[in-house]
Amino acid sequence: MNFCPDCGHAVDHRIPEDDNRLRYVCSQCATVHYQNPRLITGTLPVAPDGRVLLCCRNIEPRKDYWTLPGGFMENGETTLAGALRETYEEARVSAINPRLLSVISLPAYDQVHLFYLVDMPDFSFATTPESHTVQLFSRDEIPWDRLAFRTVEHTLKHYLQQASSTTNPSVLNDHIRL
Amino acid sequence: MNFCPDCGHAVDHRIPEDDNRLRYVCSQCATVHYQNPRLITGTLPVAPDGRVLLCCRNIEPRKDYWTLPGGFMENGETTLAGALRETYEEARVSAINPRLLSVISLPAYDQVHLFYLVDMPDFSFATTPESHTVQLFSRDEIPWDRLAFRTVEHTLKHYLQQASSTTNPSVLNDHIRL
Ligand SMILES: [Zn+2]
Ligand SMILES: [Zn+2]
Repeated sequence: MNFCPDCGHAVDHRIPEDDNRLRYVCSQCATVHYQNPRLITGTLPVAPDGRVLLCCRNIEPRKDYWTLPGGFMENGETTLAGALRETYEEARVSAINPRLLSVISLPAYDQVHLFYLVDMPDFSFATTPESHTVQLFSRDEIPWDRLAFRTVEHTLKHYLQQASSTTNPSVLNDHIRL
Repeated sequence: MNFCPDCGHAVDHRIPEDDNRLRYVCSQCATVHYQNPRLITGTLPVAPDGRVLLCCRNIEPRKDYWTLPGGFMENGETTLAGALRETYEEARVSAINPRLLSVISLPAYDQVHLFYLVDMPDFSFATTPESHTVQLFSRDEIPWDRLAFRTVEHTLKHYLQQASSTTNPSVLNDHIRL
């Protein structure tokens, strides 16, 4: 940040009074412009036959690697609404029965990734501009060496390690230091 | 947002190509400035005798109302680190044994509140610039009509509704529409 989004004057990078961190502070209007981590929300969709759905990314970063559907949470929505929206946008899946599955911090990227375990009501899914391939994988078929993100890997492993009943999955809360 | 934080020129409020939402887009450098929900992280501290710790706010908003210690997650930290930091900053409690307890979206405020159940190793706590009173409450003493935020109320109720064993509490995932 170089300029104040409110008034357009230059910002200083300094520790404000009554604070202990470097902030961007406007040299003109004195507004402190805080910067905070962003939330990525997504789902782990399970088909009626127990296979899980993955998307092969059609966009950078990590183009051509496999991921769970997900993306940046938007203002005005809930974590769940964001996760379901991304699932439809990336794989055309209308997911049901959402259960919180993982909350993983990525402090090096100023991000928190949050995934829901969801059911697919049927075998409907499709490619999208963001996913050039969408495919179901059995437990033994998951392309572990071609996954796009470590939060996807951790979330998949956490799901697969659970007892057969995942009606109420335990919630993985962890972080990844890179 | 009126001006581009990068180059200082005026921003437009319009839907970019390949998008479906209004964004702030720089009229000069074309950068899209996304705005996303912010995370508030905090704790529900339990003393060795089972009482819970609440802080009476010394600052606006909701000055003189009771809250769980918490605040905005900072860049570069994990949800847990943020929650423990805020617990010390607001109540001088060095919490242990954290377990994720609630994740509650507030879409009207573009916020997500995330609380951990934590243990206090002893009865050490103190007032701070943010909390003019810090006090332990038994289950029957909680000042329900003087709580600062509805996410605090929901998190406390979720905790108190659990079975006596809270070694692995269930995680409340909900939202509040205002
Ligand atoms: Zn300014
Ligand atoms: Zn610009």
